[in-house]
Amino acid sequence: MEDTLSREIIYEGRILKLRRERVRLPSGREGLREIVEHVGAVAAVVMRSDGKVVLVRQFRKPLEREILELPAGLIEEGESPEDAIMREIKEETGYRPGRLERLLDFFLAPGFTDARIHLFLASDLVEDEQSPDEDEQIEVVTLDLDDAISRFGSEIIDAKTIIGLLMAKEC
Amino acid sequence: MEDTLSREIIYEGRILKLRRERVRLPSGREGLREIVEHVGAVAAVVMRSDGKVVLVRQFRKPLEREILELPAGLIEEGESPEDAIMREIKEETGYRPGRLERLLDFFLAPGFTDARIHLFLASDLVEDEQSPDEDEQIEVVTLDLDDAISRFGSEIIDAKTIIGLLMAKEC
Repeated sequence: MEDTLSREIIYEGRILKLRRERVRLPSGREGLREIVEHVGAVAAVVMRSDGKVVLVRQFRKPLEREILELPAGLIEEGESPEDAIMREIKEETGYRPGRLERLLDFFLAPGFTDARIHLFLASDLVEDEQSPDEDEQIEVVTLDLDDAISRFGSEIIDAKTIIGLLMAKEC
Repeated sequence: MEDTLSREIIYEGRILKLRRERVRLPSGREGLREIVEHVGAVAAVVMRSDGKVVLVRQFRKPLEREILELPAGLIEEGESPEDAIMREIKEETGYRPGRLERLLDFFLAPGFTDARIHLFLASDLVEDEQSPDEDEQIEVVTLDLDDAISRFGSEIIDAKTIIGLLMAKEC
């Protein structure tokens, strides 16, 4: 346990909030915690009936490069995780899943943030039209699961995508 | 691509830095990016010769709870990832690995941070003394790999630990 002694909001932004807390450590001493509050996100392994997985390639400013990821996005106000992932899959890939299962919820980096991902498996896909956010440039990439996994460390380098593909492989 | 139009440092802290960038989006419009710069971290699947995996239980302030994780920590100034993980394993578990392999490097949440984990597999363990940081309260928990995996979603809920255990299971 670490009791909060004082709390200071440093920044309140669009997708995140930064706060700093002085805490009482188990040793009895005081410590400092820097914590990023995040709105929460959803992601899905989108699986076609031919066994191929539908990924998206996009530029990520924090990494200054393009990477290949699961379709994913932030949960908007008033949305359930299920609503959010159905919307994101449709926007980013054009597919509408007939079946949606929860795979796992997890935290991305508990050392400094409460950022959490709700991970789904989406299948029974109906093809529709991609309708990306005007400000997103997203390329849909469809791969065999093993081909996708062979790209770990090169094009596929983010936690949610690695977890989703490894869990799909286990299923 | 998203060219940076302007950049503002909002906070420079102990383990992270927050900046905000105005960028030119592919659509031609301007956008805002909130980016957390992180010092980088290491983690390891610490595997005993009896096939059990060595985990640590600790309190995580951003989640306000204890979770069960891979031994892990921040890379200190001047350290290589290998130095850092050898130090962390020794401090947190008391074991000294005779063998260290790189499993994978990945980014935790590329939507808002460059936070990166270097993930290792540590084996050929020699038992030594745990020497935790005075301000860390860490309990060592040794589990069968399948038992650990069965705790996904309950006690094991962070990305690096889920990835490490799934990759160890595959090996």
